Amino acid sequence: LKIKIDRNLGPSIVRQIYQAISDKIMSDLLPNGSKLPSIRSLAKDLDISLMTVVAAYNLLEEDRYIIQKHGKGSFVHRASSNQSKIEDKHLWQHSYHDYLPRAPFSNNLIQYKHVIPLSISTIYPGLYPNKFIENQLRKVTENDPRILTTYGDIQGDLELRKEYTSYLKQFGIITEPNQVLVVNGSQQAIDLVARTFVGPGDYVIMEGPTYPAAIDVFRARGASVLQVPLDDEGIRVDILEELVEKYNPKLIYLVPNLHNPTGIITSNLRKKIILEIVSDKNCMILEDDPWSELYFDTLPQPLTSLKSMDKKGKVIYIKGSKVLVPGCRIGVLVAEGSIFQKILSAKGYSDLGSPLLSQKILQSVLSSEHLNQYLEKLRIALSIRKDYLLEKLTNSNIPSISWTKPNGGINIWVTLPEWVDTEALLQTAILEGVSFLPSAYFFANEPIRNQLRISFASVDELSLKLGTEKLIHCLKRI
Amino acid sequence: LKIKIDRNLGPSIVRQIYQAISDKIMSDLLPNGSKLPSIRSLAKDLDISLMTVVAAYNLLEEDRYIIQKHGKGSFVHRASSNQSKIEDKHLWQHSYHDYLPRAPFSNNLIQYKHVIPLSISTIYPGLYPNKFIENQLRKVTENDPRILTTYGDIQGDLELRKEYTSYLKQFGIITEPNQVLVVNGSQQAIDLVARTFVGPGDYVIMEGPTYPAAIDVFRARGASVLQVPLDDEGIRVDILEELVEKYNPKLIYLVPNLHNPTGIITSNLRKKIILEIVSDKNCMILEDDPWSELYFDTLPQPLTSLKSMDKKGKVIYIKGSKVLVPGCRIGVLVAEGSIFQKILSAKGYSDLGSPLLSQKILQSVLSSEHLNQYLEKLRIALSIRKDYLLEKLTNSNIPSISWTKPNGGINIWVTLPEWVDTEALLQTAILEGVSFLPSAYFFANEPIRNQLRISFASVDELSLKLGTEKLIHCLKRI
Repeated sequence: LKIKIDRNLGPSIVRQIYQAISDKIMSDLLPNGSKLPSIRSLAKDLDISLMTVVAAYNLLEEDRYIIQKHGKGSFVHRASSNQSKIEDKHLWQHSYHDYLPRAPFSNNLIQYKHVIPLSISTIYPGLYPNKFIENQLRKVTENDPRILTTYGDIQGDLELRKEYTSYLKQFGIITEPNQVLVVNGSQQAIDLVARTFVGPGDYVIMEGPTYPAAIDVFRARGASVLQVPLDDEGIRVDILEELVEKYNPKLIYLVPNLHNPTGIITSNLRKKIILEIVSDKNCMILEDDPWSELYFDTLPQPLTSLKSMDKKGKVIYIKGSKVLVPGCRIGVLVAEGSIFQKILSAKGYSDLGSPLLSQKILQSVLSSEHLNQYLEKLRIALSIRKDYLLEKLTNSNIPSISWTKPNGGINIWVTLPEWVDTEALLQTAILEGVSFLPSAYFFANEPIRNQLRISFASVDELSLKLGTEKLIHCLKRI
Repeated sequence: LKIKIDRNLGPSIVRQIYQAISDKIMSDLLPNGSKLPSIRSLAKDLDISLMTVVAAYNLLEEDRYIIQKHGKGSFVHRASSNQSKIEDKHLWQHSYHDYLPRAPFSNNLIQYKHVIPLSISTIYPGLYPNKFIENQLRKVTENDPRILTTYGDIQGDLELRKEYTSYLKQFGIITEPNQVLVVNGSQQAIDLVARTFVGPGDYVIMEGPTYPAAIDVFRARGASVLQVPLDDEGIRVDILEELVEKYNPKLIYLVPNLHNPTGIITSNLRKKIILEIVSDKNCMILEDDPWSELYFDTLPQPLTSLKSMDKKGKVIYIKGSKVLVPGCRIGVLVAEGSIFQKILSAKGYSDLGSPLLSQKILQSVLSSEHLNQYLEKLRIALSIRKDYLLEKLTNSNIPSISWTKPNGGINIWVTLPEWVDTEALLQTAILEGVSFLPSAYFFANEPIRNQLRISFASVDELSLKLGTEKLIHCLKRI
């Protein structure tokens, strides 16, 4: 059992222990019946007082995660869990030490079938031109069936890298194919950067709230995550500057355009200030740009990336696989100099390169004359969904609730009265048959608890309608 | 600049420093002009004497990796390098600390075009039934074009996991779909296991020689790698047992069937002893099974895996993407209990799941009635190539040279007289227009230098013929 205590963080040490253990229990990393360390030994390991551990264990017992048996110790005991019993022959495995950080929150949601997943930030397959993509695929394999059995380069297919180079110009990015790395989606890109440059004791600064799976990756590297709040113009640069001066962070992870989950667009002035702040610091920025293609008609054109203003090679730019052909899981990373070479090495360690077939399909979609038309249709469909959801929320007349009106992307960010805990609300919603993502998931440390993210793109239209109704029903009952 | 010194390892500390720095220079992670740490500061950092650093730097200067400028310091200076100058604006990047281990040897080989790559352990695309695979692909997408735009499960497509469950029976593996994880090739599987269970200070035991990219992954986690020699029956279990007792390793990585690079098959008795050795230890075995389908007619049937004898969940079994549809880069991992759950979490952190399209293609190939026929043809083609290469070697009458006669796989392992350094020989071979993999690449620490691996599957038949001639020409000139 690995618990990391950080005395500099907001939450109390009791809360940190509680969180670490309950996370592991909820995701079944500590199955029912597992014995927890004794109070004495945990206190010694973490160099904290016995009373602190007692308080944490009492809290865990109160919330029905564990039971404490006098003279025998403390055991995981989830009454509500319907997991099948772990067979005896694997019991030894529980003492096999691992290096995993907090259990991924998202695992908690996977179990629920029969629930309309407005929690998931993906785009419904029916919104893509599947027949068109299939035709592109056919051309690719007819042209050269051997790509099905050929290993590609570690860096990625050269022709795809050329296509990306010209595709990225619309976001202001001027690069060349040898500075482009093909990756398996943005998740892998974040992971490659983290494993190359982030290690134990390093500080990583992120927006708060931010993309949950990125928090998990940095935590997994042993880094301390600091979060900076946002206002209407993006990340609060005054706080960012203070934190950079004080902590000398290794990396700043940002989603400057159509931020996940809030949809906020960082102003160009803020973007310049961000670059100024890190200009003479030994610190890189990781710019995640998941869906700047998906702007609505309230915006005139694609958004300018932070990378486009980067003159010194301080920004690593990544774009994932959500918008183009999601089934291929192909994304892209752009960087310069030795930073790029090192990330390329990490890609080699990680998987020796992305699958060639997926790359070729994406290349052929990127080079097609129909691409713009296809993106335009997607933007319109998403904009209609967004308007639908906003209208339903407005008409519901729920008191003390507010929400964002995003200019693009696939999410709406809702704020409830301060006394509402959306993690608890999620349990009610799941019983109703709908899910969302509670704000706590988007924070590394002491979270804001009264917000939630609704994704309006992940399901078919009927499910969106049903899900919205169920959700509004839940919100009304608060 | 990160250098790790291990006082318990064979090579001297001078040699370890030399190796660490020259590796980084060769792979351009330390470009020309980079300033090395001062002798005083490096000695202090590593807690070693000034004279040790002086000796290492002198050696590096002698071998023309660096120049030492009196009063100014030591600088990387590769006269032979024709790298373009790194632009000034990225110079700051050289002081940005990274967590990379030794530079991947393989990068050194990628640069050489016009060289017949008998160094690469892949199978030539022309040996696969590409049209058949293309047809399967067509069926998949016609059936449901939406798989092109759908995210799959983190664990992998359920139908593919079912197919794998029945495919793996031939290797004696009885499992079920919920114990099967779909991965992006064996490289990712090794990486997932390493990041979940291997950390700084842990010991990992491997065969010596072994698969080079696996060494890199464990090193990248900060582990100490110990290697155990092989004899005709597989890993030397007497030495293995001693090391397990002494070092309490976290993981044992093995290729028990058709070992890479030697082709050795671990006997069933040895397999039982290996399991006995770890039976009551807090230690897992990672069994890599790249190509046990590729047995020649000297063997009666597929080989039995170590996993098939595992009664306690001690073995994590992985099978990569080389034999089935390499362009898809889809492989599989089998494990049980909490070990499996933890690796599944790591897969989520790493990339949120493998691409669905690739999985569906592989599923359709696995379920096809033509699969056996296709594998039989591949075995015959490879066996003919192996015989060709062995015959050429025999007829060349080179004195003091021996080689393996593999019962399967795609490599031959050649032993030259003890005074030959095959890393130096590779430079000659590249000038001749052919490459192989020198034995030093297969060792984590002080290597055996007089062996080399020839891959007979990676190129078309004409290139194999030409490459073999060029290679024999080189060997004759020793």
